[in-house]
Amino acid sequence: MPVNLPEINPALLTPIQGIRLGWAESNIKTLNRKDLLVIEIAEGSSVSGVFTQNRFCAAPVTLCKKHLAAVKNHDGSQIKALVVNTGNANAGTGEKGMLDALTTCSTLADIMNIPAESILPFSTGVILEHLPMDKLLAGLPHAVNNLTSDNWADAATAIMTTDIAPKAYSTKVTLAGDEVVITGISKGAGMIHPNMATMLGYVATDANISQSLLDEMTKEIADLSFNCISVDGDTSTNDSFIIIATGKSSAPAITSRNDAGFKEVFTALLETSQYLAKAIIRDGEGATKFITVNVNGALSLDEAKTIGFSIGKSPLVKTAMFASDPNLGRVLAAIGYASRECKSLEDLDTTKLELYFGDVLVAEKGGRAESYQEEQGQAIMNEAEIEITVQLHRGKADATIWTCDFSYDYVKINAEYRT
Amino acid sequence: MPVNLPEINPALLTPIQGIRLGWAESNIKTLNRKDLLVIEIAEGSSVSGVFTQNRFCAAPVTLCKKHLAAVKNHDGSQIKALVVNTGNANAGTGEKGMLDALTTCSTLADIMNIPAESILPFSTGVILEHLPMDKLLAGLPHAVNNLTSDNWADAATAIMTTDIAPKAYSTKVTLAGDEVVITGISKGAGMIHPNMATMLGYVATDANISQSLLDEMTKEIADLSFNCISVDGDTSTNDSFIIIATGKSSAPAITSRNDAGFKEVFTALLETSQYLAKAIIRDGEGATKFITVNVNGALSLDEAKTIGFSIGKSPLVKTAMFASDPNLGRVLAAIGYASRECKSLEDLDTTKLELYFGDVLVAEKGGRAESYQEEQGQAIMNEAEIEITVQLHRGKADATIWTCDFSYDYVKINAEYRT
Repeated sequence: MPVNLPEINPALLTPIQGIRLGWAESNIKTLNRKDLLVIEIAEGSSVSGVFTQNRFCAAPVTLCKKHLAAVKNHDGSQIKALVVNTGNANAGTGEKGMLDALTTCSTLADIMNIPAESILPFSTGVILEHLPMDKLLAGLPHAVNNLTSDNWADAATAIMTTDIAPKAYSTKVTLAGDEVVITGISKGAGMIHPNMATMLGYVATDANISQSLLDEMTKEIADLSFNCISVDGDTSTNDSFIIIATGKSSAPAITSRNDAGFKEVFTALLETSQYLAKAIIRDGEGATKFITVNVNGALSLDEAKTIGFSIGKSPLVKTAMFASDPNLGRVLAAIGYASRECKSLEDLDTTKLELYFGDVLVAEKGGRAESYQEEQGQAIMNEAEIEITVQLHRGKADATIWTCDFSYDYVKINAEYRT
Repeated sequence: MPVNLPEINPALLTPIQGIRLGWAESNIKTLNRKDLLVIEIAEGSSVSGVFTQNRFCAAPVTLCKKHLAAVKNHDGSQIKALVVNTGNANAGTGEKGMLDALTTCSTLADIMNIPAESILPFSTGVILEHLPMDKLLAGLPHAVNNLTSDNWADAATAIMTTDIAPKAYSTKVTLAGDEVVITGISKGAGMIHPNMATMLGYVATDANISQSLLDEMTKEIADLSFNCISVDGDTSTNDSFIIIATGKSSAPAITSRNDAGFKEVFTALLETSQYLAKAIIRDGEGATKFITVNVNGALSLDEAKTIGFSIGKSPLVKTAMFASDPNLGRVLAAIGYASRECKSLEDLDTTKLELYFGDVLVAEKGGRAESYQEEQGQAIMNEAEIEITVQLHRGKADATIWTCDFSYDYVKINAEYRT
């Protein structure tokens, strides 16, 4: 079961004016489950995205990037719909894969009477198999026919793969008396690592945000949310994160960082995105622990993140967490070899750093802290939520990453599931 | 059980003239097991080593580096003994850890009547706990008392930690009628990753090799053997690899790469070291498969090794191997995200590479090979030894790395064992 992930309550997912969602059961991989989602985006919206950096990126990812670039270059054009299928990733599918993604867009374009270039396609699921196009195309009219604005919970379910639970979140901010609402959904449980992972994230707001500012915000927010999580260190071929700002709220438009409301909306979008990113870790394959790693006092953000992920990716740390074992040694070893991936850490002075489990100082001066009692560490490890903090005392950069433990079930799930 | 690792036959481990080995049961962690080893090295030998690059390197590693550096700087001084304990790594032990390593050397120095600086100390086992010095020191006279030259099998056993089987190898070459013999031992099963891992490797030969040439050879051989293996991607605090050349063979001295016999001796030392490195993978924690990953046609050795380890470290690839699942997609995804750790791979053209399982072409042109039948892949995956080859078609650099699968038992071993 996911670690402290509350069940979603459809009534608490606020509709976003300018967004309608529709789903279909198109039998792509499994019979009788929601596996196709269409999101309709009203005229006047800004849409930004960040995508996997895997060189084997899937055909739909390539097409998304192309369509978003075209929007930037042509005044007046706009992204008007997203289409997401689960069950098949359309990755490692060569030229036919690209043709299938194009056909998906052009077919949906005809149904919705919009340009094919205004559609962003997304696929997640099995790699290296061709999309069952007849089934997918047959599902599109059904999805369009049930477009409604209060469908976020169904949408969250329609994009799941190995996820146990759907992931969704809503929040709102009030700007000079006008309410701005934000709702988002995400999916992902395995092949999760930054830049990015087998994850999809869609966040929509009715705030009015200019395209260029939203592009900047989306990248920054991704770096502070979905790019701070790791289940297994595997970066997938299909990861995508999209923010849509429909501008339907009566709050004033935000076109620069100095505008009133920027900070509030940024914070609310970040809160939503971090919730959704952390929800993926809570539902990490086989996860029994939710682990937060804070790295403070680094020379650079790169140093801080590298140490965070060095701890968060270590199979030895993750199996110790599964065993509720306060194994300081494995954490220190993971800090020590982070220099493999970040050259500036080669002069890390390990006698100066402090390691905390929760609030308890467990290591300093290159060894176990004298004040530390194993019972203290054990009490912290027994919890489902574990916080590890490394204070490097060498600079001002901090980072936080989120990860989960490594259990028998991780092996079981991945020895049985054909991604 | 280890994957295709033959039991060692003590009678086939050739003694090396100039080397004597002695062990003791000193109850460091477990009662009644060999856990302390002394290796005596005759006058006139060359000794070279490479060590972990973990910033939390253990006290004995720091001392080994210091003593080896002193040998280089002082003509006439020489390394005369190695002392290895298992059960406790003396890592993350601060100033007291260094004092303990020094005391180990000075006590052994008194017993053997040699300088403390001529001794290299090694420890492996639990991290962050202080060495039980009374037990260790009490064991030293016993180890010295039973020094003999035909003790390699016992020595291989005395350095084991989570290893299931001892690891040893002998070979010989004939140089212009004179025989040169080589014998080595290694240990390691988890926390295994290059540069280096929780592994110890000791190789001795009676060849006469100059100190400066042996230093070069040791680094090169480590890069082609112990630095080409990964069990779990964790680089330990204690890894050490030592080559000793006693010069007792009647074969002519080798002082440069152009000397007669260099090539033969280098090849035999490499063969021994690769055997011992691969033995660690065959005995990898929970391993059921031995996996060879060849990466050919890269622009640089770094590109080739990065892709090799990207595949070899991926938990998704390793769990698929455990399941005997010919999961092309996960291998391609791992190739695709290798650019995370090697910038030059950012322009990797995935449509040009070919992927082979054994001799079978399984992927090309960015997707599954048209000729490929799943039964072919399945037949290869059913074997205990699996070879994966990636032909990048972008340069002339090749690399081979060795790894194992990721099984329930890996989780079990590491959830139960306190390293």
